[in-house]
Amino acid sequence: MTRYVAVIGGSEAAPDELAKAETLGRLIAQEGWVLVCGGLGGVMEAAARGCAAAGGTAIGILPGDDRRHANPHVSFAIPTGMGEARNALVARSADVVIAVGGEFGTLSEIALALKMGKPVIGIGTWSLGVDDRPDPIVRAESPEDAIARIEDRSGGPGPGG
Amino acid sequence: MTRYVAVIGGSEAAPDELAKAETLGRLIAQEGWVLVCGGLGGVMEAAARGCAAAGGTAIGILPGDDRRHANPHVSFAIPTGMGEARNALVARSADVVIAVGGEFGTLSEIALALKMGKPVIGIGTWSLGVDDRPDPIVRAESPEDAIARIEDRSGGPGPGG
Amino acid sequence: MTRYVAVIGGSEAAPDELAKAETLGRLIAQEGWVLVCGGLGGVMEAAARGCAAAGGTAIGILPGDDRRHANPHVSFAIPTGMGEARNALVARSADVVIAVGGEFGTLSEIALALKMGKPVIGIGTWSLGVDDRPDPIVRAESPEDAIARIEDRSGGPGPGG
Amino acid sequence: MTRYVAVIGGSEAAPDELAKAETLGRLIAQEGWVLVCGGLGGVMEAAARGCAAAGGTAIGILPGDDRRHANPHVSFAIPTGMGEARNALVARSADVVIAVGGEFGTLSEIALALKMGKPVIGIGTWSLGVDDRPDPIVRAESPEDAIARIEDRSGGPGPGG
Repeated sequence: MTRYVAVIGGSEAAPDELAKAETLGRLIAQEGWVLVCGGLGGVMEAAARGCAAAGGTAIGILPGDDRRHANPHVSFAIPTGMGEARNALVARSADVVIAVGGEFGTLSEIALALKMGKPVIGIGTWSLGVDDRPDPIVRAESPEDAIARIEDRSGGPGPGG
Repeated sequence: MTRYVAVIGGSEAAPDELAKAETLGRLIAQEGWVLVCGGLGGVMEAAARGCAAAGGTAIGILPGDDRRHANPHVSFAIPTGMGEARNALVARSADVVIAVGGEFGTLSEIALALKMGKPVIGIGTWSLGVDDRPDPIVRAESPEDAIARIEDRSGGPGPGG
Repeated sequence: MTRYVAVIGGSEAAPDELAKAETLGRLIAQEGWVLVCGGLGGVMEAAARGCAAAGGTAIGILPGDDRRHANPHVSFAIPTGMGEARNALVARSADVVIAVGGEFGTLSEIALALKMGKPVIGIGTWSLGVDDRPDPIVRAESPEDAIARIEDRSGGPGPGG
Repeated sequence: MTRYVAVIGGSEAAPDELAKAETLGRLIAQEGWVLVCGGLGGVMEAAARGCAAAGGTAIGILPGDDRRHANPHVSFAIPTGMGEARNALVARSADVVIAVGGEFGTLSEIALALKMGKPVIGIGTWSLGVDDRPDPIVRAESPEDAIARIEDRSGGPGPGG
């Protein structure tokens, strides 16, 4: 079964975050996986651009109700008209979530994915602490490292395995 | 901009309804449009099968939270975990809706699409009456007729024009 | 268990529809039931006004994201920010739905309630036909008649019984 | 305008967390505010119990589709059938959010509230860090302290002011 990987991050992002997101999109396409994103600008657009450039499929799940507000690199756009509640759909649609950077919307998608029992990999994103428990986000040093950590899971009974 | 056309109908359907849905899926693919459906069985599966057989893309927006419950002919599956509230997403994602047959879920998608101002074309589906107003559903005699009625709108400033 | 009854109808409505909705709100309050509505104007506001005047509780489930857009007669307002998808929540929250008048949003709530297996009572609302099946909406002549039809069900294992 | 305050926390919680949630519910009722919660057990139930005991109103917004699954202390229950996507509705319905303890669902509601620009007060909950930015959660030492921090905002143009 094809794996769906979400790349989540802010609609405004620093140049190095955009570069990482674009590389992630490219690598996901090269793996033959489907990219899921929020369909708007910033990290979402960079990931979709990288994915499209490598011939992959990028699905954008939009908060608004007009498909034309999707960034131009998305292969297919799903307008939800549900506002922030669409963040649950981004998490739900993915087998694995990769977070880049640290906006509140990104944090909500991280938390929803964790709540749904899905692995979350982070590059330069939130640190989450409570009591003495370890941070539930798997840290990656680079886009290549993030992809490798997903592949490591392929041997087991993972959600997209 | 690519047109998205939803084919909606029951998860249990009569043989002639399934045949019509499959033809609709094929014709939508041949037009180069994207098929949107609810991703499950019956009319949804027949439409996706026809679309896939003709090399098109079928997006299934599922009520449940597990992508593996999609029918095998869907190109991409979006599990929402939202139950009946996902019917609003099927209507929202489409520029035009074609209804086949007459279940309650189908009626809700017809109504939501009409509420959103989208054209609804019906083949053997609900008749809607209130006061003396004309039925808001455009009737089609066949799948070919339904497609022709969408193309007729292409000259104007339609939602997918 | 307290019964929740939704009164649904357009945000713009004729004077006689508003009068019926206000009476329905009053009768629901007098029965000790909870009124559920969409929280905006027209039929929704009239029902809430009648309910509040009789000392009952009216819950408004709003499509927008700002509670202040609720009509002033709602006891409690739940802003969803989900647009038309909130119609599924209105239907979901009710044990019985009473429809007044005939807008498309009303039709969608009728259909969603029917899909969920909930009884729908109509006063001057849509006629629904498909094949030779009987119209699934129970017709009422007046607000009093609508309430009586709900009470008739109280002897059995109804959803709020 | 009446203030709506959400108390969020896990369906399983430690005794001291339950005690704090119950006190929060009582204090919210004594302020004349409306309590919003997720309607299930643990922190949600303790807060509703404290609120009801003090004569207040507790609204439970449920992930499932059956109102009977609400805890018995909720005044009004809104079943959504939307799963985790209902967490956005809990955040959306509140003017202020108070988080007790540290489950993933709680984290998602914290993040969604922050994304919506609503103040979040935490008692023994997640620490959130990214880069050098300060933790966006306002820390409270006790339920009384949490309430005082909400009242401090009442002088200005706060969301419920």
